[in-house]
Amino acid sequence: MEILRKAGDLLSAIREKRPLVHHITNYVTMNDCANIVLAVGGSPIMANDPAEAAEVTAAASALVLNLGTPSAAGAEAMLSAGRAANEKGIPVVMDPVGVGLTEFRRTMAAGLLKQVKPSIIRGNTGEILHLSGMDGCSHGVDSGNAPNSGAGCSKKVHEAGIEAAAGLALKHGCIVALTGKTDVVTDGRTVYLINNGTGALSRVTGTGCMTTSLAGAFLSVSGGDHICAAVAGVAAMGIAGQLADNLTEGMGIGTFRVKLFDSIYNLDGAAFLKYGDVKEFEYPVQGVT
Amino acid sequence: MEILRKAGDLLSAIREKRPLVHHITNYVTMNDCANIVLAVGGSPIMANDPAEAAEVTAAASALVLNLGTPSAAGAEAMLSAGRAANEKGIPVVMDPVGVGLTEFRRTMAAGLLKQVKPSIIRGNTGEILHLSGMDGCSHGVDSGNAPNSGAGCSKKVHEAGIEAAAGLALKHGCIVALTGKTDVVTDGRTVYLINNGTGALSRVTGTGCMTTSLAGAFLSVSGGDHICAAVAGVAAMGIAGQLADNLTEGMGIGTFRVKLFDSIYNLDGAAFLKYGDVKEFEYPVQGVT
Amino acid sequence: MEILRKAGDLLSAIREKRPLVHHITNYVTMNDCANIVLAVGGSPIMANDPAEAAEVTAAASALVLNLGTPSAAGAEAMLSAGRAANEKGIPVVMDPVGVGLTEFRRTMAAGLLKQVKPSIIRGNTGEILHLSGMDGCSHGVDSGNAPNSGAGCSKKVHEAGIEAAAGLALKHGCIVALTGKTDVVTDGRTVYLINNGTGALSRVTGTGCMTTSLAGAFLSVSGGDHICAAVAGVAAMGIAGQLADNLTEGMGIGTFRVKLFDSIYNLDGAAFLKYGDVKEFEYPVQGVT
Repeated sequence: MEILRKAGDLLSAIREKRPLVHHITNYVTMNDCANIVLAVGGSPIMANDPAEAAEVTAAASALVLNLGTPSAAGAEAMLSAGRAANEKGIPVVMDPVGVGLTEFRRTMAAGLLKQVKPSIIRGNTGEILHLSGMDGCSHGVDSGNAPNSGAGCSKKVHEAGIEAAAGLALKHGCIVALTGKTDVVTDGRTVYLINNGTGALSRVTGTGCMTTSLAGAFLSVSGGDHICAAVAGVAAMGIAGQLADNLTEGMGIGTFRVKLFDSIYNLDGAAFLKYGDVKEFEYPVQGVT
Repeated sequence: MEILRKAGDLLSAIREKRPLVHHITNYVTMNDCANIVLAVGGSPIMANDPAEAAEVTAAASALVLNLGTPSAAGAEAMLSAGRAANEKGIPVVMDPVGVGLTEFRRTMAAGLLKQVKPSIIRGNTGEILHLSGMDGCSHGVDSGNAPNSGAGCSKKVHEAGIEAAAGLALKHGCIVALTGKTDVVTDGRTVYLINNGTGALSRVTGTGCMTTSLAGAFLSVSGGDHICAAVAGVAAMGIAGQLADNLTEGMGIGTFRVKLFDSIYNLDGAAFLKYGDVKEFEYPVQGVT
Repeated sequence: MEILRKAGDLLSAIREKRPLVHHITNYVTMNDCANIVLAVGGSPIMANDPAEAAEVTAAASALVLNLGTPSAAGAEAMLSAGRAANEKGIPVVMDPVGVGLTEFRRTMAAGLLKQVKPSIIRGNTGEILHLSGMDGCSHGVDSGNAPNSGAGCSKKVHEAGIEAAAGLALKHGCIVALTGKTDVVTDGRTVYLINNGTGALSRVTGTGCMTTSLAGAFLSVSGGDHICAAVAGVAAMGIAGQLADNLTEGMGIGTFRVKLFDSIYNLDGAAFLKYGDVKEFEYPVQGVT
């Protein structure tokens, strides 16, 4: 499929250019995010102080804004770095971790989206539903890849997810990547549904954050093809998860997590084509919504 | 043994309910704590800013307060979240990491214990001795499972440990879990001595913190049986450590740490019954103190 | 070789004494640094708040100041702890992470070096070039072991690296450890060139930071032989990297990272002698500069 071939080309470009990907991110998974960017071939830098955030961004090829473990200082750094990125044409990916959970997160995300234009917003179903103004659900920091989990989620959540993602994409003029049992990537007109991944991804912290970081790495070499970067990031994590989920008796998420990094490290264009389960639709998607 | 059967029931309840466990915790081991809660079946959320701490706690089924890498902002968040938990009847587990080490930690822990009532206090020998007002010893952040280590420790430390734990439990009307070569769990009247574990646990950072987080996960489904939650958390880590400690030539703590997460992930009620080495006494324990 | 035999003796001393190594360090790799110190036999403590930093240092046998994810509060803690260390004769190792990258980092590092005297400065080529006042290059947080990477680096970078390291060592009266394809350890008069290591070390975050932490652990038992501590820390990481880099099909940096901790855990004096590739020169090095 064309988009998977292009995803493979972006992967080769990351490995050739080793692009610097600036993260302002949460304290829980920042080590994982740094390692996943290294595994895919990029060069991560984590710098979250307002005193230097914009200057670091200016040296980078992409900016990742992850709103987990939010703080006032972090928000200030994100605003400063985000504006610098917008001015210089450096692409931004935003991950509104647990946005529906507290007033503090809602205000922070809304304020950031007013002043910084992202190229990609990556979240789970509850987070995207919340940002789109539809009823949401959010269940801990680790529901990123869990199938339709959370108190406020109905069985119609998949359909609602596509509608929310498309609406949010049009509202902000960006790509929205909603990860769940089926992942949705859309610019509000074209919709990619991705059926890679495995349940084990929801049992390791940071797989959502790492997907966002991968999207940032692909974004840094995408030359403006943001939807391809988002599909590539999401599909890379899904495929790597499937390949890592070959556990034998006695193994569990400890081993799975190690294999996940190995799989991203060994991912190549051929794996995208062989394992990628990506379907392209026009919005509204016939027979789904 | 009855308590081990009940521990297995709590484990099943965690896996069924996926309870949200709010952590305000240190920056060294927060990723490990998130992953161990996921491994045991719960849903972790780390949120340490005073601006949202109480609101996050209100959505959670248990609160973990871990005093490592202490800061004024962290203390404020713990106070705010701890009070919210007490008001709403959400159980709290407190881990006074390195409490004897500095005036800052002593003051913070004492202030917190005046205003927040924990269901469980989990510490190593030095930490529990300090909080009980007896002479303590504290040796880095990683002496949680080390056998009676530290400058101020004598050979009588095990007996002193039981006395300190029982006294502290009665003083605060809570469960005290002291982890060391032999773990002690007590409410001041009943004493459980647990002889699981392995020396390798003292060679990986965060095994003490993770034990506290496991206690938090068990606490969240315990329905008020706090002593069982403490025994379950402590025994789970000890048993998982034993099962993980089957290393072959060339392996070390890197591999051990991976297997530790695997073992918690695969733990079940049968493993509690098969491997749990828990003995019940009335305090004072005959022949030990 | 004599220095490798002494490195082995220091390793034995770490395992016997379990020295407390105080870290004020970045949030990305602090868990890795704690685990590598435990793996080599030491006892890590991470405490980065100005309110307690000096008091923690006073209880420790070495102080590690790592300038990654810099902040004003961190700088204040480093200053306070560094002064306490200097007053009490506790050795300090400093890692100027990404120092050339922003004005904030340049100012912080320069201020710190004016008021705190390190026993060892450990950095990559770009960082050491910057601190020495020569033209530098800095490329993300993970270029510590990458061979001569970065925009500002020429093919003469190795020669320039030795010159910069020697100059910086004489300027501050300390040991400088520059890690890259060939590692350089020097006091400005004697130069050790170390040809251990493997490319995979540049694909895992924190291998530079962990090298600094290992130097801190060796420093804590070095009895003033700082150059041996630096050689030991750098060679330990290089040898462990080589031993860990025996990956089979499908393995990658996830597995490599696990094996790296295993290798440090299993390192002994015999491994230093068998695998250590260390050559001693007088500065200026004939045929190299």
